[in-house]
Amino acid sequence: MIIDIINKKRLGKELSYSEIDKFFNAYLDGEIKDYQMSALLMAICINGMTDEEVFALTKVFIDSGEVLQFTGIIDNMVDKHSTGGIGDKTTLIIAPIVSACGVPVVKMSGRGLGYTGGTIDKLESIPGYRTDLSDEEIVNQIKNIGVVVTGQTANLAPMDKVIYALRDVTGTVSSIPLIASSIMSKKIAGGADKILIDIKVGNGALLTTRKDAKELSRLMIEIGKIYQKEVHTIISDMNVPLGYAIGNSLEVKEAMDILQGKETDNNLYDLCIDLSSTMVSLGKNIDKSDAIKEVLEVLNKGRAYEKFLELVKAQGGDIRKLKVSDNLKYIKAPKSGIISKINALELGKLSVSLGAGRISKEDKIDFEVGIRLNKLVGENVKKGDVLATIYYHKDFKMPKLETIFDIS
Amino acid sequence: MIIDIINKKRLGKELSYSEIDKFFNAYLDGEIKDYQMSALLMAICINGMTDEEVFALTKVFIDSGEVLQFTGIIDNMVDKHSTGGIGDKTTLIIAPIVSACGVPVVKMSGRGLGYTGGTIDKLESIPGYRTDLSDEEIVNQIKNIGVVVTGQTANLAPMDKVIYALRDVTGTVSSIPLIASSIMSKKIAGGADKILIDIKVGNGALLTTRKDAKELSRLMIEIGKIYQKEVHTIISDMNVPLGYAIGNSLEVKEAMDILQGKETDNNLYDLCIDLSSTMVSLGKNIDKSDAIKEVLEVLNKGRAYEKFLELVKAQGGDIRKLKVSDNLKYIKAPKSGIISKINALELGKLSVSLGAGRISKEDKIDFEVGIRLNKLVGENVKKGDVLATIYYHKDFKMPKLETIFDIS
Repeated sequence: MIIDIINKKRLGKELSYSEIDKFFNAYLDGEIKDYQMSALLMAICINGMTDEEVFALTKVFIDSGEVLQFTGIIDNMVDKHSTGGIGDKTTLIIAPIVSACGVPVVKMSGRGLGYTGGTIDKLESIPGYRTDLSDEEIVNQIKNIGVVVTGQTANLAPMDKVIYALRDVTGTVSSIPLIASSIMSKKIAGGADKILIDIKVGNGALLTTRKDAKELSRLMIEIGKIYQKEVHTIISDMNVPLGYAIGNSLEVKEAMDILQGKETDNNLYDLCIDLSSTMVSLGKNIDKSDAIKEVLEVLNKGRAYEKFLELVKAQGGDIRKLKVSDNLKYIKAPKSGIISKINALELGKLSVSLGAGRISKEDKIDFEVGIRLNKLVGENVKKGDVLATIYYHKDFKMPKLETIFDIS
Repeated sequence: MIIDIINKKRLGKELSYSEIDKFFNAYLDGEIKDYQMSALLMAICINGMTDEEVFALTKVFIDSGEVLQFTGIIDNMVDKHSTGGIGDKTTLIIAPIVSACGVPVVKMSGRGLGYTGGTIDKLESIPGYRTDLSDEEIVNQIKNIGVVVTGQTANLAPMDKVIYALRDVTGTVSSIPLIASSIMSKKIAGGADKILIDIKVGNGALLTTRKDAKELSRLMIEIGKIYQKEVHTIISDMNVPLGYAIGNSLEVKEAMDILQGKETDNNLYDLCIDLSSTMVSLGKNIDKSDAIKEVLEVLNKGRAYEKFLELVKAQGGDIRKLKVSDNLKYIKAPKSGIISKINALELGKLSVSLGAGRISKEDKIDFEVGIRLNKLVGENVKKGDVLATIYYHKDFKMPKLETIFDIS
């Protein structure tokens, strides 16, 4: 009985594969209602899941849809996923880099929800860019230019999609077992042989402690073993936003700056080099030090940027039409000193209040608004210096400076 | 924000009065959805609530409807509530006893859900008996005959009603804070000055340990203090069913047997004497020993039974039309010995499978079916003796004898 399964998890007991399979599929069939699923999800969030339960849930998610196969097209497919953070535009940068190094990249990305943005929204700020490629279009584009960045196809772990949408509105997002099964089911169904996961930790991320990040890492590696997938993880900081831009068009612009070699001295650049060289080393089975050399070369010679332009064009985008708002407001330093902290979460909230993100699934995004940090952590500032520029359209509430910047 | 409140409770933090008030009222207004409320309820079930949170929730429940006042009609109103168990027909017995002793009784009761029955369903097995009296009819009947047993009026803690219905289908019933606020809000809104709570403990009850029962008792007494209500509790066993009948008409018949003095030697009789004498002592401000004398006198002189007939007639019931099914099956002893255990929960499940209870709110009850125990715990039985009689209409699955009776 439905209630018995919920009660079992409420009491912290282990559910069997057949109980998990039955409950989740009955939900897809409409026999189990949203309010019953959300009760179970909350019980999972609080009481956790054993590894066996996580394996069962991952299998149920995968089995709910198709499993893509790139055999004969990509021999050793490497995929990358980020658990999401404020200002995380790494995919826009590393997909072209890795592809320019000769490793094909099929990246299926998601939309933003809550305070963290999504790659698909960012790409859609480029007028014309299509994020709904069919399986056939994906295969053709990979053959032609070796890189695709699109939305998940509808039939890839479809159960995860409906569960994720419910989790998002019921306070049941921050659960390591649920995060692990959600991510891994999509990556495995997506056909990757090797999977690189960028686990974000900090106040601007789903996970706030390194301990949780390590547990998520362990769990994803274990899931990978079952499906003969090599899983690698990087744990990266998300107390400070990544790079200087938050907001869709602004982040595309920043990605282009990195690809053109205009920015080489911040946390975003460092992370992109790390992630893309790891992917290249996995894709080519070469040492990471050699992979770093290749990555720096395609960046320096402009081939990564060319690949980005090729990608945008192939998917119908017109980069010349990318626009940011003309209405600007400035946050200025009230005193001189060194910036000791920039609060990622507060910047995420501000960007959502500007319209750059969604609070509910139906919200429309304003691609042209956002925040550009003019000063980053560690920089010296003088009283009156511009710390950040806000690009806005509608009215918004200016946050108190001290909630975002610490100057000491 | 909605999600922030759910997240706070997921992390085990204390919600403020204004957060509880906002969340629950937004649910009534339809702004918060079932799936969000059930997530919060599950978080409350697992992480608990502080006393302050329980006080807040109780107040929110009470404030959602009217608060009845019997000033000038009943000076010192005593109410009684049972947390529910298998075969619990005590209200049918003690309401007439207490009223016959001169203490007016206004009892608003509920329906059965899950494996435990409800007083209102039992009374409706008497053809014609009305359980939907208006406030005015209640007052008139109290003035005329001094006893009323009816359903809760629609506007008494209406928020508790919708929350209870959701808890019932989401595995969030077994929570001490939620049980305490649900019961106390109804009793306080019902206008009682003194409240007697019969807390059931055992496998056939919501609570299975005495520790939980004591905690519920403490919490309800604390809530009572805030509203200047004297709360008394009795903790009684629900591993064994109460009395010998389970099922609506059968239970009404058993209540009549007790009121007519035909049964004086079982757990049901003992509990009814205890509860009714406590109510009489509270209502008249007399010693319990004196109250017991009064109770035994109205029972022995038939005045309690007369009061029961008066009550049924006043609310439109025709006791001569009370019917039980003619289709009988017998559970017989497979060996001789002493009955050491009778499993209340399994009998509750059997009665629901016969149609005597509801699994979902829409289910119709068959009043005429149920189980009559022919032997109780401690009795000697010979091989072949009838242990229980099953009154049925539709087909049902006969349970294994050893799941219900232990013979040693």
